[in-house]
Amino acid sequence: MTSEDLKKTEKSRVVRAPTRGSYDRETTYGILDSTPLCHVSYIIDGQPFVTPTFQWREGERIFWHGSSASRMIRKCEGQPVCLAVTRLDGFVLARSAFHHSVNYRSVMLFGTPTKVEGREKELSLENFIEGLFPGRWETLRPMNEMEIKATTVLAMPIDEGSSKIRTGPPVDDEEDYALPIWSGVIPVHPAVRPPVPDPKNLDNLDIPGHVTGFKLD
Amino acid sequence: MTSEDLKKTEKSRVVRAPTRGSYDRETTYGILDSTPLCHVSYIIDGQPFVTPTFQWREGERIFWHGSSASRMIRKCEGQPVCLAVTRLDGFVLARSAFHHSVNYRSVMLFGTPTKVEGREKELSLENFIEGLFPGRWETLRPMNEMEIKATTVLAMPIDEGSSKIRTGPPVDDEEDYALPIWSGVIPVHPAVRPPVPDPKNLDNLDIPGHVTGFKLD
Repeated sequence: MTSEDLKKTEKSRVVRAPTRGSYDRETTYGILDSTPLCHVSYIIDGQPFVTPTFQWREGERIFWHGSSASRMIRKCEGQPVCLAVTRLDGFVLARSAFHHSVNYRSVMLFGTPTKVEGREKELSLENFIEGLFPGRWETLRPMNEMEIKATTVLAMPIDEGSSKIRTGPPVDDEEDYALPIWSGVIPVHPAVRPPVPDPKNLDNLDIPGHVTGFKLD
Repeated sequence: MTSEDLKKTEKSRVVRAPTRGSYDRETTYGILDSTPLCHVSYIIDGQPFVTPTFQWREGERIFWHGSSASRMIRKCEGQPVCLAVTRLDGFVLARSAFHHSVNYRSVMLFGTPTKVEGREKELSLENFIEGLFPGRWETLRPMNEMEIKATTVLAMPIDEGSSKIRTGPPVDDEEDYALPIWSGVIPVHPAVRPPVPDPKNLDNLDIPGHVTGFKLD
């Protein structure tokens, strides 16, 4: 990010904890690429809204999509938004309530999204599916004109924002380390269960590798 | 929720998909109680912000907390906010890109949070810890005045909002069911790994039941 962005980033850093900021693109991209779920916030008539959706990244831009009729999509386009991607890694149990915490990786981005149009829009939807399920796109019934029209893709440069990471054990008050209180971390992660085939699948279909190999971490 | 709230709820329902709304308190409470992570959105100078934090519920109110100095806390108090709790249950793979979806449970709440003060504030923090780790509070070094002052607890009535749930297999266009494309659901869930003791723990501490029995689903 530019030094101008870095200033904004350092400003946004004080939201949570000044020691947890990190701003290099690789860290931010790593969090975005491993965590498709995001929360987008936007304003309607002075009221904040936050909507969960999926994001994907192409180079230095972040994308999301929705029904062209959806309120979220209509109210985000051309307006200032904030987008958060949060990955919970563990519960941090300390010797005092005050020092309990969580291990996490998070990204907060600011910007004004614009519509992606034409061939780029179709390609971006292909990238979205392929990013989650490599090889699936070419096996699918192709998108038709109505579906493309009914879908809006928004994109925003990844320029302004911050990423934050907390790792490791609790940090307790020095004198509390003498207390006989079990402390530590309970790690959590998104796990995948065996796939559930659609009962309407044709007989004898192989389960594709993008299903058997699907992982979220 | 009141019929007035229900109207607002039905309005907010069109954000995603009209068939996925459900509004009874038990459904909403079930989602909130099983999913501590939330995203709170608020406005600063016309710019939306969204911040991940943890929520907990007491009766018909939702609570969250933070450093009294945090921007999120200062900008939420007495202002309109939107709070989202999202639980991802599975990836839904269809026969066309368009009908790919996700299974999820989500809650979106609107309101104006107020500070929780005095004895109620301390009790609410105890409820927060005890909700996650039953029995832990009484084992901890007690909170001191400085810590209580440095922490702000916000609460908001659970009155206006909606919950949404999607479950089940993909819903494809009728003619696409004849295609030889593997479709179905990849279920995901938050899993817990074995606890990692703080290297600074005293020797021979038993791992408490609220750690060995910790679950997120």
